[in-house]
Formats: sequence, structure tokens, C-alpha cells
Amino acid sequence: MEFWTEPQMASIHKMLNPGSIAIVGATPRMQYGGRFLAAALKAKDRVRVYAVNPRYDEIMGVTSYPSVTDLPEAPDVVAIVVRWDQVLDVLQESHRKGAGSAIVISAGFAERGVDDRRDLQRELGAFAGTSGMRISGPNCLGLANVKHDIWATASSRGAEGLTGPIGLVCQSGATAFGPFLVRAVENGIGFSYIISTGNEADLDFTDFARYLLDDPDTRVIAGFVEGFKAANKFLEVAKLAAERGKPIVLIKIGRSELGARAAQSHTAALTGADARYDAIFAQYGVIRVQDYDELLEVSHLLAHTPKPAVPGIAVVSHSGGISSLTADMCGQAGLDLPLLGDEARDGINGILKGFGWAANPADVTGFANSESFPQIMEHMINDPRIGTLVVASAGADTQAQQVISQRDRTDKGVVFLWTGSRDTKAGLAQLKGARIPIFYTPDKLARGLQSRLAYHTWRERRLADGFAAAPSRTAAQDAAITRALGLGRPTLSESESKELLAAWGVASAREHRANSAEAAVAAAEQLGFPVALKVDSPDILHKTEAGVVRLNLRDSAQVRAAYAEILASAKAYAPQAQITGVSVQEMVGDGVEVIIGVNCDPQLGPVLLFGSGGVMVEVYNDVALRRCPITRLEARAMIAEVKGARLLQGFRGRPAADLAALTDTLVRVSHLAMHLEGHLTELDINPLMVLPRGQGVKAVDALVVLRGT
Amino acid sequence: MEFWTEPQMASIHKMLNPGSIAIVGATPRMQYGGRFLAAALKAKDRVRVYAVNPRYDEIMGVTSYPSVTDLPEAPDVVAIVVRWDQVLDVLQESHRKGAGSAIVISAGFAERGVDDRRDLQRELGAFAGTSGMRISGPNCLGLANVKHDIWATASSRGAEGLTGPIGLVCQSGATAFGPFLVRAVENGIGFSYIISTGNEADLDFTDFARYLLDDPDTRVIAGFVEGFKAANKFLEVAKLAAERGKPIVLIKIGRSELGARAAQSHTAALTGADARYDAIFAQYGVIRVQDYDELLEVSHLLAHTPKPAVPGIAVVSHSGGISSLTADMCGQAGLDLPLLGDEARDGINGILKGFGWAANPADVTGFANSESFPQIMEHMINDPRIGTLVVASAGADTQAQQVISQRDRTDKGVVFLWTGSRDTKAGLAQLKGARIPIFYTPDKLARGLQSRLAYHTWRERRLADGFAAAPSRTAAQDAAITRALGLGRPTLSESESKELLAAWGVASAREHRANSAEAAVAAAEQLGFPVALKVDSPDILHKTEAGVVRLNLRDSAQVRAAYAEILASAKAYAPQAQITGVSVQEMVGDGVEVIIGVNCDPQLGPVLLFGSGGVMVEVYNDVALRRCPITRLEARAMIAEVKGARLLQGFRGRPAADLAALTDTLVRVSHLAMHLEGHLTELDINPLMVLPRGQGVKAVDALVVLRGT
Repeated sequence: MEFWTEPQMASIHKMLNPGSIAIVGATPRMQYGGRFLAAALKAKDRVRVYAVNPRYDEIMGVTSYPSVTDLPEAPDVVAIVVRWDQVLDVLQESHRKGAGSAIVISAGFAERGVDDRRDLQRELGAFAGTSGMRISGPNCLGLANVKHDIWATASSRGAEGLTGPIGLVCQSGATAFGPFLVRAVENGIGFSYIISTGNEADLDFTDFARYLLDDPDTRVIAGFVEGFKAANKFLEVAKLAAERGKPIVLIKIGRSELGARAAQSHTAALTGADARYDAIFAQYGVIRVQDYDELLEVSHLLAHTPKPAVPGIAVVSHSGGISSLTADMCGQAGLDLPLLGDEARDGINGILKGFGWAANPADVTGFANSESFPQIMEHMINDPRIGTLVVASAGADTQAQQVISQRDRTDKGVVFLWTGSRDTKAGLAQLKGARIPIFYTPDKLARGLQSRLAYHTWRERRLADGFAAAPSRTAAQDAAITRALGLGRPTLSESESKELLAAWGVASAREHRANSAEAAVAAAEQLGFPVALKVDSPDILHKTEAGVVRLNLRDSAQVRAAYAEILASAKAYAPQAQITGVSVQEMVGDGVEVIIGVNCDPQLGPVLLFGSGGVMVEVYNDVALRRCPITRLEARAMIAEVKGARLLQGFRGRPAADLAALTDTLVRVSHLAMHLEGHLTELDINPLMVLPRGQGVKAVDALVVLRGT
Repeated sequence: MEFWTEPQMASIHKMLNPGSIAIVGATPRMQYGGRFLAAALKAKDRVRVYAVNPRYDEIMGVTSYPSVTDLPEAPDVVAIVVRWDQVLDVLQESHRKGAGSAIVISAGFAERGVDDRRDLQRELGAFAGTSGMRISGPNCLGLANVKHDIWATASSRGAEGLTGPIGLVCQSGATAFGPFLVRAVENGIGFSYIISTGNEADLDFTDFARYLLDDPDTRVIAGFVEGFKAANKFLEVAKLAAERGKPIVLIKIGRSELGARAAQSHTAALTGADARYDAIFAQYGVIRVQDYDELLEVSHLLAHTPKPAVPGIAVVSHSGGISSLTADMCGQAGLDLPLLGDEARDGINGILKGFGWAANPADVTGFANSESFPQIMEHMINDPRIGTLVVASAGADTQAQQVISQRDRTDKGVVFLWTGSRDTKAGLAQLKGARIPIFYTPDKLARGLQSRLAYHTWRERRLADGFAAAPSRTAAQDAAITRALGLGRPTLSESESKELLAAWGVASAREHRANSAEAAVAAAEQLGFPVALKVDSPDILHKTEAGVVRLNLRDSAQVRAAYAEILASAKAYAPQAQITGVSVQEMVGDGVEVIIGVNCDPQLGPVLLFGSGGVMVEVYNDVALRRCPITRLEARAMIAEVKGARLLQGFRGRPAADLAALTDTLVRVSHLAMHLEGHLTELDINPLMVLPRGQGVKAVDALVVLRGT
């Protein structure tokens, strides 16, 4: 464990599995303190529950102690429901008493948006770290150990019989104990734990997720997250989750500016650049969903169906219209409904006798509600092309029971698309009770199945390929870094940037620096005409705009004239600019322009960008993103993701480009970003020319920006 | 009415509002015939119901007649539930008896996929047309006049108290009387009529929709459609619907190949090219949705909220997490949550007193369940920036009633995002009873509100702009058409194509046809160098591939050489090709390449395509589509839709292009397509060069393909 310690996990364990709970600020009124006490008391036969409030002798039938110090034992968890300015005192007292952990319900911290409250929250976090008494909250609603039916929460909501394999972690307590809880109850979806983390002064989503990875009763981790505090921790959790085969399913706020604004106003969470999150989730196998029902349905599906042996889906319905729409949505989601083999088709036709359609989707009319339906399902699910069976119907008569029996007889996945009312009790309740995954619309079904397939496909590939790791730095790379940092300024000039890149094996267009017109002409003659001239300066980043670039210079006279012009332009554009020289470069002709960049996101770390070059990246934003470092397989996937990369394959009669060299370059730049982590802010190679196969790549322009010191 | 006649509407009226119903094939068993009889009998106090079946004297307490001829009156509607090969006989007999209309439940027609059944279905349609006794079906489930509680259906499902303003028309009967019916009941959503149309031998979706446009009790038309039989009728219905302000909300199969395959197998419906449907739905204000719940929720929203005076949405919730996700989804859908004005903000802050956030979205904590909540809502909804109020909460205590009162006091829209369980009865039932539109997830809410806003915005613009109409043809256009048709072959050569375009005012690059190298040189000298040479032939469509194009010829020698080369290439490529000459063209330099095309879709008619030119259209499929004809406003919208059209605005220092001329050209080509309807198969102008502002456009290459005769 790089990020997590045994004592931290032990403290979380006590918080989630307490033998004793003290509620500081318990009251007889059913506000936060009273609700927490009432919730905890439901487990009083298994957990020792203490009220702490000097104003009462007894609340809800239990003794109320004047302070934590007065408690007869050191509680495993202290719930704190006092005014914001008393929270730290109670924490300190609890630590002195020897308490195992704390849940801070109190609000009034960073979410108020003022500095002193942010500072106070930071103090809470620091205290947890040094004392070892870990904290959930502040501004949370507590948590529930559903599997042992212990509810340590200020929510008035609870539920019985809700045990299941999904561990739910939400920053928003009202969401955890609101829509997620009530809809899970409604839909027969079960949890191991429900945890609200609030402002995350100390423990955050990833800490609890890390705990759940070790929990044998949790098979899927579901979350509702506004922003991540530490990307590295999240990535580490995602890696471990992949190894252990526990999918992470998330709602992550930040799809739009409006969401980011709202999240920041209420928990001070920074949502971050959304496209980067999407890319990283895909890279790390995290399944992103959009709404309450979807989070529950997809988590439930993953927990209650096996990994599909083959991707093919079979759909059977009593209705042609329903099966058409289901097929349509499956197709739109990119799923495959293979044609049935002869055996299955003939078998079903033998039952239908001229009615309906023995196809995939199958429209079996009234036979969906007959004693022949088990045979129909059997024919479909036994087809070797089929990995998962979807029954799209309304569960009337004995159909629900037939489907449950079918599921119990097979090692393939069985899923129900419920086309009846959600109010119907009989068949639907049976399916829920049997933990058959249920969807209510073809659209959601298809997206759920697609997420499941994508997850398993991703995981298989990822386990084979491994997660990328940057190799150790070479001596040359160490020297290049020392040199770059030694320049003492954040922005490197083009030639300095290219020199840095060279240490990671990224070739650039041949060039010479010149400090006079004559030297420029000599350089041009050595390189061979035509050439390009550019001013080399760490202070002029937008060279075309500044008018300090001249391309396609065909003879000495043109070079001489260009030399004078661009120096004059540089002077006019930025009189104070430091000019390190004029760069004379070969014109790199016969290649495809692409761009490679790195941006060090304050939340997510170094993110690599690959895109098609020229006008296309600007007009179409045709780019692929990945967290650094990447493997060669990931580099190839990035190239495949960019539509304009079709030009690399020899579009319209042009020669195919050197994809192997491009792949290498992407991997190497990702290593460079890791090696420079902490120093690098931004890197741009624009354009990188990808030459015909066997000829490599050449950076034509490059810019490195380091962190100011 | 161009497509519909008074007698046809009268026949539909009888079918939907029958005073008498005969069921041919009624049985005591609860199969199709028995179920239909039982359903009809529920209205027996208002409707005279007759069973027809020679094998019984009496069924379910009513006399069974041996045949339609023996009935005591001519029924308004005859329901036919007999074997497929007896249907036509029963129809003929019913017509002789003077019946008003027929519903054919029997299956076994075109959906069987064999020719004789297709032919028989065609006979049914023809009989309806000539007899005037119109038919719904075959292979349908019948219909329900919900507002008068008359159920003329073979479905066993019915419902009471379901009356409302949505007219539902579905090709799939099991969908109409399945998910739509049961979920409408569950969600308090009401219908005027439920109509299933089956295979549509005669009456189709558009005929019933046309009837519903005249029905004062129908405010929204909802549909589930696999394919349209006649695009012109559908477009006409959409136009009338726009004029009358009755939105059409549709699920249309065909998002994917799988859906198309399934639809074709079960009702022989052809789904058509999906991108064209999307384009035409947007052009005609038809709202396309994806699933059952969404169709109902969006229809209900449109029926039960006023047109928003301003687009701003206000969101208020008891929870920060819920309001963040709601804001996030609204932002993603392109909706605006304006910042509240001072008055609203101060007013709410006066209530919250330091708790929660008086913002938009507003997180009002426990005040959402207090007696102050009406004032909070009042402050938000009275803000002039706000057109619609969303309450995102769980309707506990008196909240639901407060929201209903608020809705009753305002002329703005009030919508509920229900975050509780769908099982909860109290508050949810009140909201349903009051017809407050309810959504259950932020994602669906946001998409619903966006559809509503887009519809009203579209309609306002459309009513101002009008629907396009092609002007009458000029004499020159008549002559051009005659000339083109007179060529006696479907494919026109480049120069013939350009000549046709010229009659609609579409200019081409200057060119001369030459039949010798000397003539080519003379032409080039007249045009001025550089020039292009191309073989002109109706038999060589892919000229670049054939090697019969030479560009940028700079002098006579090059022209002479090119002339020989391309004739040789033409000979080698297509020895039998008719060569109409060699075209010598000016090189059109300083413009932006775009493409314009027309494709005459067999279902949808002539569809205009505009796209960015060159590599971009191939790599990015960057195109906009519209049904012809179009207005100038629509032409401008097409240009705005194409991302690559940014280049037309003077990208990277290039001069702005002649957008006015491009707009004109799009409109004119759409007129040409209408003028040539029935003759045209395909038209391509690729590339069209858009010259700098004031200099117009020039077609550089063009291809017209007419229908073979």
C-alpha cells in the first residue's frame, strides 16, 4: 500500500463496524442529533450506544453523558453533531478518550466559501492524520453497515433486508440516503455499506473505496462524486479494483459548467476538466453513468451476472414492437445480436409452428406466456453465439418463475427488460427477490449491457497488457532535466524544448541556430534548400502571430531577407523579449501533421493529448487523451480514436505513415511527463510530422513550460 | 387537405367513435376474438355490440350472428378476427352491409415476408380506398377511445380514469396496450385515444395523426413508428401540427441496423436512413425520443406546461448533491440556469438565515419541507429571468401540495424532479393527480425540458419563417429539364450536369469543350493559364480514379500533353465509354471547398446535403441534411451546423467567403430537386468553391443522375 496504512484501514474498519457509538450532540428532538441516536439505537442489541449532551440525563431511554470524557468506554466511533466551532474540541477530547474514529455531521466548513472555515476544515484533516483517529465529513450524513444492519447516520431513512454486494460511497449524504437508498429498496438492490463522505477533510471517496476492495462482501463499488481530492490515490484504487475484478461505477459531476458551479458552491469540490475524466475513466476501467437509477441498475447487473463468455446477446419477447426497439437500442449501443444457429432456430420454430419469428430478437407472441417458454429460452441460451439472454416482457403468469429457473440452470447471464408497470407486484417482486437484473426501458438495458461488456473486455485486455510504468531515467535524461531546470525560467525556447525532447528519443527537424544573416545562409546551404527561419525565444510563444516565421525559403537571398524581417518583427512584437538566436530548419515535407501535448492537471496529474494536426484539431477538436504513463497498446488506441489519423494509413493514394514511430513517440512523451512530474506544466509538439513508414517522426515545433519556482 | 378526404376522415371518425361494433370471429375463449368482445362489452351501455360467429348462438350474453349480413344494422366498425384468407371476404361483406370502417386484427400478411401475402395485403388497402370503408391493420390490436371509455381492442388491458390530452398512435399494438398503457396508468398520464395501426394496409400513422389534429381533446400526438409509408403525408401532418401548436413526439425505430432488421422481419416496415430522419424531424419540429417512459414524460410535459416566456430554468432542492447533479444535467442538455436577481436572492436568504445556498440551483436544506417553502418558490418563479421552476425533492410532508398550489398560482411552468421512491404513495400521488409533470432522474428531466424549449423555439421561428415552397419553374428551367430528359440516359456528363444547374442560377467554373488538342490549347489561352483538363463523359463518374483529370496546366505544351494522356486513360479505363469531349476549365483558386448534394430517398423524397469539402467530409462526415425545399433561414442553419464551415468565415487570416451566394445556391438546388422530383435520383456538386465575399460560388465538378425510364 503506497497511499494507505494499516492503522488508517483499522480506523475505517472501526468506523464501519463499530461495537460502540457515541453521539455528541444527541437530542430528543428528531433533528440531526436525535435522528442519529434513533438510527444507532436500532442496533442496540449488538452495539453499545451512548448519548453525549450535558443538557440531558437521558435521551430515548439511554443515559446522556455530559462529555466524551465521561463515557464508560472509548467508543469505536464518535458521531459529532455540534456547532462548527466546537467540532475540533470534541475531536481532541475523543482522541484523548481513545476513540477509534469520528463522523462529523456538523456543517459550516469549506462549503461556506470563506477562508477561515476552509482553514478550520484543514485543521480537522491534519488532526485526523496526526492523531490516527480518522474522520468522515464534515458536512456528511454518516454511514450504514447494511450487512450487519448498523445505521450510524443522521438520516431518518433506513431499511431492512437491503443487504447485497454493492458498496456505495457518496460525497452527498442526501443523495446516498435519498434517491439511492429508496430506489434500491424499491428495486430489490442490495448494499454492503452506504457511506457519505461530505467535505472530505480527511477520508475521501478513494479511502473508503480502498477499504471496500478488501471487503469480501462487496463485489461492486458504486459512487457519487463531485470532485477527487487526489488523483494518484484514485488511480491506485482503480488499478487494484481492476486486479481484483471489482468494478467501480460512478456518477461524476462536471459534465457542464453549471454542474461545476453548483458543486463548488455547496461542498467546495472542484470538478475538473470533464473530457480528461472521461478519458481516464475509460483508461482505468471506471464505468461512468449519469443518473440514480442507472448507477443502481448497472452496479446490480455487474454484481449479479457472470462475465460473458461471448459478447452475443439474445433477445426474446412476446411482442415484435418491443423486440424491435430493444434490438434497435442494442445496435445503437454497439452490441451484437447474432443470428441464431440452425439448431436454436429450428428448435424454436418447432414450438412456434408458424407464429411469430424464431430469430434474434425473437418475437414468440403468446408462447412467452406458455409452458413452452422454458424450452424457447433454453434453445436461445444454449446457442454458442449467445453469452447473455434478455427476456423483454411483462412477467405475467409463470413467466417470472420460468426465467428465474432458467437463470439458476445456466452459467450465462440472464437479464429482464420489464415492459409492464413498475406497480405490478407479482412477477416483478419474484424477479427482484431472485436478484435478476431488471431494466425498465430498452435504452437503459442496452447501455447497461454495453457497460458490462466493455468492462469485462477492458479488464481482460488490461490484465494482459498491465498498467504502464515509466522506466527509470537514464543519465542523459537526468542531465537534460538538470539543464532545463537550470535555465531558471518556466518557458523554454523552441530549441531548448526540442533538446529536452531529444533525451527521450523524440527526433526533431534538422536545424542550426544562427546569430547572423551570413550564418543563417551557411546553415541553409548545409541543410539544403528550401528551409524555414524562426526566431528562437522563450518569450515569444505564438510565433506565427508574432510574424517571426518564414517558410519555404528557396535561396540565399530569401534567407538573408527573411533573417532581417523576422528579427524586426520580433523587436516590434515583443521589444523586451530575450532572443536566443534564429533557427534555420529543414522543411519537412512528405509527412502527416499531428500534435502531441501534455497538460499537468492539478487534480489528475499529467494528461497526454494526441490529435490530428492543422485545421482539423481546431475545427473538430479531434483528440484523444490519456493519463501518463501509457503502454504501446494505449498509444495505438489513442491513434485509433482520432478520426483524422485515417490520413496516417495512406489516404487518397498517399504513402502510409510511420505508425510504429508515432506509437513510440507517444509512449516516450508519456515517460517524459512522468519523469518531469512536479516540474512540468505543459508540453506541446505542434506539429509533429509523421513521415512515410520506416522514416520516423520529426517535431517541427515544440514548447515546454515548467512550473515557476 | 391535399392527402386526406372528408369521407376518409368521416370513416376514421366512425372507427374511433363508434355507436356500434361487430366482432367477426368472436369466441367465448379469451383469445383475440373473445378479448375484443369482452373489451367492447364494457361500453355496452353506450355502444351496441354484436358478436359474429356461425358456431355460436350467444357469446358472453349477447346474440352471436352467423354473418355480418345477418346483423340488425350496419355497424360503425367491424372488428375482424378470422384467418388471413377469409379477411377480404369479410371486408367485402361488411361493405355491402354498409359498415363504416374495419379493424383487422388478423395477422398473416406482409409480415410473413412472402409475396402472395404482401399482394393480399395490398388488395386489402386497395379495397379500402375504392370502397371508402377504411381499415386499420391488419396485424394490429385495435384501438381505444379513452375519453369516452370505448375499448375496441383485442388486448386484455384496459384502464379507467386515463383520460387526458395525449393521442397515442403505434404501429405495434403490444407496445401501445403494453408498456405505454400500463406506465401511463402508473404515472397519471392521460390519453384521448390509443390507436394501433399494425401493418397499415390502408390507414397509417399519418392518417390517424391527421384526424387527431382536428380533435379538440388532443393536445399532443405521441407515436411509436417503425417506418413511414409516405413521407409527403407525414411532412404535411407535421406542417399542420406546427401551425396548430400540437407537438408530435415519436419513437422511431432505425437507430441501428439491428433495429431495422427486426422491424422488417415483424411488420415488413422499412425504417430508412436514420440520419435523414433525424434531420427531417428537426426541420419539421418533430420531437424524437428513445424509450417508453421518455415518450410519456415528454408528451405529458408538453401537454401540461405553458410555452416558456423565457428559457431560464430555476432549480430548488433540499439537497446540494441533488441540485448539483440536476444543474449538471441541465447544463449538458444546453439549458440555462440564470443567476438569480438580487430580489430573489435576498428574499431567499432572508428565509435561509445562513443555511444552504440562495442560488440557482438553490440548496434550501430542510426549508424545502417547511412552511417557508412556498415563499422560496415564489421568490424564484417571480424572477423575470426564470421561465420554468423545477422542484427536485421527495415531496414529503406538505411539499407536494405546496408545489401544486404554486403551479395553480402562476402562468409559468412548474415541474417536479422526484428523488424519492416510485413506490411512495402520498406526495407522488397528489402530484400525479394534479397533472404536474414528473421526472425521476436529472438526466431525463434535463432532456425533457430541452425538448420542450427546442420545440417552442423551433415553432416560433418556423411560424415566422414559414415552410419553404419551390417557386414555379421558369421557361428556361422547363427547357433545361426537357433537354436533360431528352438525352435518354440516366447519367449526365459533367458539362450536361452543369448546364442543368445553370438554369437554377448555379454558376460553374468557366470552361470550354474541346475535341482536339489544338482546340484545347485555344480554349486554355482564352481562359488564361493555369487550366484544368477533364474528359467529359456520362460513362465515367469517378474521374480522378480513372486518371482523366489534369490540374494546374501552365502552358500550351502541358495542355497538349494532358489532352493526349487523358484520352488514353479514358480509353484504357472504360473502352466502351461515350466521350462527349474534353473540358478545359479555369482553375478556381481562392475559395473554400464545400459539397452540395441531393439524394432522392424512396421514403422521404429529395434530401439536400451540405458539407465541408475535401478530406473533411470523408474523415468526419461533417454534413447537414434537410428535406427539399428549404428557406434561406434553413440554408443558413445548414451552414452553421457544419463545423468545417468555420473556414468560410475567414479562418487563420483568409478572406471571409461569400456566404450569401452559398445560401442562395443551397436554396436554388433545393428548388431544382423539387422541380425534378420524380426524375432525379442523385445530384452532386463536389467541390463547389465558395469565393471571397462578393464573388459568388463556382461549381468545379457536378454530377446529375436521373431515374432510368
